[in-house]
Amino acid sequence: MAVGDGNIGTLYPVSGLKLGIASAGVKKPGRKDLVVMSIAQGSTVAGVFTKNLFCAAPVTIAKDHLARATPRYLLINTGNANAGTGSSGMVNGERCCAALAQIAGCETEAVLPFSTGVIGEPLPVDKIVNALPAAMENLDEGQWLAAAEGIMTTDSRPKACSVQVDLDGCLITITGISKGAGMICPNMATMLGFVATDAAIDTPTLQNLVRQASEHSFNRITVDGDTSTNDACMLVATGAAGNERLLEGTAAYSKFEVALRKVFLSLAQAIVKDGEGATKFVEVRVSGARDEKDALKVAYAIAHSPLVKTALFASDPNWGRILAVVGRSGLENLDLNQVNIWLGSAQIVEDGGRASAYSEEQGQAVMNQDEILIHVDLGAGTAVESVWTTDLSHDYVRINAEYRT
Amino acid sequence: MAVGDGNIGTLYPVSGLKLGIASAGVKKPGRKDLVVMSIAQGSTVAGVFTKNLFCAAPVTIAKDHLARATPRYLLINTGNANAGTGSSGMVNGERCCAALAQIAGCETEAVLPFSTGVIGEPLPVDKIVNALPAAMENLDEGQWLAAAEGIMTTDSRPKACSVQVDLDGCLITITGISKGAGMICPNMATMLGFVATDAAIDTPTLQNLVRQASEHSFNRITVDGDTSTNDACMLVATGAAGNERLLEGTAAYSKFEVALRKVFLSLAQAIVKDGEGATKFVEVRVSGARDEKDALKVAYAIAHSPLVKTALFASDPNWGRILAVVGRSGLENLDLNQVNIWLGSAQIVEDGGRASAYSEEQGQAVMNQDEILIHVDLGAGTAVESVWTTDLSHDYVRINAEYRT
Repeated sequence: MAVGDGNIGTLYPVSGLKLGIASAGVKKPGRKDLVVMSIAQGSTVAGVFTKNLFCAAPVTIAKDHLARATPRYLLINTGNANAGTGSSGMVNGERCCAALAQIAGCETEAVLPFSTGVIGEPLPVDKIVNALPAAMENLDEGQWLAAAEGIMTTDSRPKACSVQVDLDGCLITITGISKGAGMICPNMATMLGFVATDAAIDTPTLQNLVRQASEHSFNRITVDGDTSTNDACMLVATGAAGNERLLEGTAAYSKFEVALRKVFLSLAQAIVKDGEGATKFVEVRVSGARDEKDALKVAYAIAHSPLVKTALFASDPNWGRILAVVGRSGLENLDLNQVNIWLGSAQIVEDGGRASAYSEEQGQAVMNQDEILIHVDLGAGTAVESVWTTDLSHDYVRINAEYRT
Repeated sequence: MAVGDGNIGTLYPVSGLKLGIASAGVKKPGRKDLVVMSIAQGSTVAGVFTKNLFCAAPVTIAKDHLARATPRYLLINTGNANAGTGSSGMVNGERCCAALAQIAGCETEAVLPFSTGVIGEPLPVDKIVNALPAAMENLDEGQWLAAAEGIMTTDSRPKACSVQVDLDGCLITITGISKGAGMICPNMATMLGFVATDAAIDTPTLQNLVRQASEHSFNRITVDGDTSTNDACMLVATGAAGNERLLEGTAAYSKFEVALRKVFLSLAQAIVKDGEGATKFVEVRVSGARDEKDALKVAYAIAHSPLVKTALFASDPNWGRILAVVGRSGLENLDLNQVNIWLGSAQIVEDGGRASAYSEEQGQAVMNQDEILIHVDLGAGTAVESVWTTDLSHDYVRINAEYRT
């Protein structure tokens, strides 16, 4: 199950970024589970990574390599997260990087590894190494969709987004892919996101861009509140478009940032719409908060509540459950008499009590839709934040109960 | 579904406390949904209530009445929580108290109301008032089991516990009942718990006893992390046993407190074992923490993780999910190399990595049991805390998706 049609639209190639796909048989034979991204010399690369303290070996290696060399290759496998694997996990991750570096003729540090899949099992290095030549042989700029398929795990469909924007007469492309369906509550990044542009951007600027775009996209989605050990989001800028190097504060920078955020938000929302067992796509918007922190506290409390999520699954306008979550969300000095809540366009709570004009039919009409807005106004300030989430369905339980079988 | 046989054992009457049960048809006709507890003159009463800011009207009324008079009657209805009902909810709650007071010939403030059920719908006052005479007519000290049945909502079985203890040659009885199956993450109390003793205890001492006993029982359980709007736990001391008034610091006090905590913990654990859709009863014990707060932070993160809970439902020893939760639980300065984790008697994580002697068979053997211990040692201090929870099953989703239909 998934919400919406999952339509991706045209994926424009990014000059300077080639993608190669192969079947390594990491977990199951015959499935595309290995993706190599080749980055042209002269490109800049920036990224954000999970804040889970038990971060996976590839996250540690990728951060280390990124600090020591300019990346030339991204190596992504599914089927095994190489997480909770201790020092042997580090050795295994480095061996994969070294094998790719040898084929490509670059230094090992120029390869960044990314893994996603089961936690706590040894990475099958030989299977990955044996499949590298096949992936290198089909490197091509036109393979974004195949790469989006190649990084899927429990995802039911590929996730990708591409936009073009004119910067001072120079046509710039931004194209990206993402994956993730469960263990989704990113903290700095998503499960995996890879975005490339042919714009010319220096590394510090690129790092700011990826951090800020992630903060308002991947860091605002949750399926089940479980932050992964392997989250990573990378942004590559090849400079092949020939634009003047982007500088913060310019009109071109602002225009680019808007386009980039659009791609990031599309990729993040695609993860939620394909959330494990999802039948609803839900925006939880909290306005009138004292600050961003308060707004997010209430928004996440609602987005994580099993009772709200099962009511959404049942299309049941059980507004009392939403109200109860606001009450337990832990805000200090919250004046309940100032709280207003809407389900879509139907006001369900007015000044802290049941809205006088609310009828069950109004709530039901909203709940019957696939895409639902829960809007809480706290009446305490001016901060507004949104997070995006799913319902909690029978299929979420089935998928996660059967995950390793 | 529920874990264990739910066997209650003998329920000793508490001299001075009578229970009356009736069918008011609050939500469905024919079901026992009204319980009256009559408290002998000269008794003391103390209680703890939900910290949910959107607390229900009966909670507000009960706290107010408790401060203004000595309670003589507790009035409990199921089927409707009278929560999120604004000022009319307050009026309705008071009307029920006044009606009972008129029959009983006491002041309205001597009646404490308790409601549990659907949030946000008007309390059917007339149905309740009409059933009061029937409940008053069958008041009897021997009706604890019938009362336990009378306060059930989605509970699959009644919950009660009774112990007797000798204090300086005087036989003291403590008997209690509880209810709750979903929206369980009490914060100061449980959904509903009523415990009575025939010991003589003054009110301040009784208040200390109920607060401390709740803290380590009802405040340590969670089914779904959703704190109810109606949580309340009351402790009545009739003094009919004729013991010397209990004084803190005496041996008799300590002996009584141990017995009382046993009753509270039994009632709290019974709620978890009967948690909505529960197929497993799980203790999450965190030791080696810097302080109680850190221990509870990690314990609740594990107990609330949908991924850990679905793995428990599947009897899948997916220890990587437990490890990932410890990593994202938000402790500062956690040294991962000091972390050890056991599943029952099987050590799964040793010094921050997969335990060398661990085998999947060991983990599977533990997971196949109905009652499971997850023990995390943080290696950072001496604090130890336990919380009790359930798995997340298909039936949890079914029950909560169908709740109002």
